[in-house]
Amino acid sequence: MQSMRGLFITVEGGEGMGKSTNIACISDYLRARGVDLVVTREPGGTGLGEDVRNALLRVRPEPVAPMAELLLLFAARAQHLQQVILPALEAGQWVLCDRFTDASYAYQSGGRGIDAAVVRALENLVQGELRPDYTLLLDAPVSIGLERARGRGELDRFEQEALDFYQRVRDTYLQLAKESSGRYHLVDASEPLAEVQRQLLVICEELFACWAPRHRELPQRGAPRQ
Amino acid sequence: MQSMRGLFITVEGGEGMGKSTNIACISDYLRARGVDLVVTREPGGTGLGEDVRNALLRVRPEPVAPMAELLLLFAARAQHLQQVILPALEAGQWVLCDRFTDASYAYQSGGRGIDAAVVRALENLVQGELRPDYTLLLDAPVSIGLERARGRGELDRFEQEALDFYQRVRDTYLQLAKESSGRYHLVDASEPLAEVQRQLLVICEELFACWAPRHRELPQRGAPRQ
Repeated sequence: MQSMRGLFITVEGGEGMGKSTNIACISDYLRARGVDLVVTREPGGTGLGEDVRNALLRVRPEPVAPMAELLLLFAARAQHLQQVILPALEAGQWVLCDRFTDASYAYQSGGRGIDAAVVRALENLVQGELRPDYTLLLDAPVSIGLERARGRGELDRFEQEALDFYQRVRDTYLQLAKESSGRYHLVDASEPLAEVQRQLLVICEELFACWAPRHRELPQRGAPRQ
Repeated sequence: MQSMRGLFITVEGGEGMGKSTNIACISDYLRARGVDLVVTREPGGTGLGEDVRNALLRVRPEPVAPMAELLLLFAARAQHLQQVILPALEAGQWVLCDRFTDASYAYQSGGRGIDAAVVRALENLVQGELRPDYTLLLDAPVSIGLERARGRGELDRFEQEALDFYQRVRDTYLQLAKESSGRYHLVDASEPLAEVQRQLLVICEELFACWAPRHRELPQRGAPRQ
C-alpha cells in the first residue's frame, strides 16, 4: 500500500518569488494530466491554521517571541497534517503545499536564529517520518524578490524585516537544497515569468512520468485518474 | 540577585473550581499587604496569547489535533514568559497566574493522552529552568465542578468534553501535587466559598511571611513595598 500513497510536493521560496502564480501553473498542469490534486498552504490550510496565520501576520505593538512564532507554525502544521495532508496522501491524492517545514528552517532558524536542532525536534515530534517527496525552490537574489513584493502593496510584518534577514533565509534554503539534493529542484526565479514556468513544466513532466505509473498499476479510490 | 526575583505563584484546577473568584481574593490580600503583584492568565496574558485563546475556544466543525492544541498552548506560553512573566519576576514583582504548564500536563497529557514526556520536552524548551514557586490547586470532585460551570451559561469546547476526560484531568493534578508536594498547596474547593477563601488566606499569610522578608532586605525598583 505504501507505493500507492500520493505524492507530497512542497513549493518554497522567499518573498516575491512568485509562489502563488507558479503554484497555479503547476496545479493546472498536473490536473490537466489527470492528477487528483489537493492544493494547500502553510501557515493555513485549515480553519485553525488560518487563525494562526492571521495571528502571526497581525502587526502588534510588542515583538513576537521567536519561539512563540515557531511553535505556532508547528501547531498549525500538526492540524494541517491531521486534517488535510495525511488523509489526502493516504487516499492516493497528490498534495501541493505552498511552504512546509523547510520554511521553518529558513525563516525561524536561519532568519531568526533559533537552533536548527529545535526545529528538527519539532519536525520529528509533529511529522514522525513524513517528509515531502519533492520540493521546488523558487530562488532569486533577495533584492529582486523584495522589489516584486513591494509592488503588491503594504508590507506585512515579515516583509518589513531587514534585508539581511532575507539574505539569511535565502542562504538557508540554498543550504537545504544542497543537503537534500535528491528531493530539491532549484528554479531560477530571477528569469522572466514565461521562462520560470517553462522550467516548472519540465520538472512537472519528470514528476508525472516518474510517479504516475506507480498509481496506474493498482487503481483505488482517490488515486490519480489516467 | 536570585533571591530578589519576585515570587511566581500559579493557580490550577479543573472546571468550576472558582479560580477567577479565588484569584481575586488572593490578589486583594497580597496587594493589601503591599505586594507589587502582576495578575495574569493562560492561555492569554498577551495580545498573541489572547488570539491563541480565542482560536482554541472557538467551536469548529472539525476536531482540533491534540498536538496542535498542545503546541498552541506552549506558543502562547513562550510569548507570555518573554513579554509579561520574566520581566515582572526580574523586576522583583510577584506574578499570580491563572493556570500554567501543569494545566498542559493535566489537560493535554492526562486528559487527551499525549505522552507526558512530550509536555516535559516542550516545558524544558520554552521555560528553561523556570518553574512556579508555589501552586495552589483548587480541587473538588468532577461532578461538583461541572455543575457549577454549567450554571455559568453555555459550555465552551473544553467544557463539552466527557466527564471521564475531567476525571483524568483531576487525577493528573492530584498526581502532580503528590510528586511536587513542596510546591503544591491543595485547597478543598468542594467547601462553601467562605471556607475556601479562609484556606486561601492561611496559605497567603504563610507565603507572605516566608517571602516578604527576603524582599525587605534589599529594596529595589519594583520590589514589594513594605
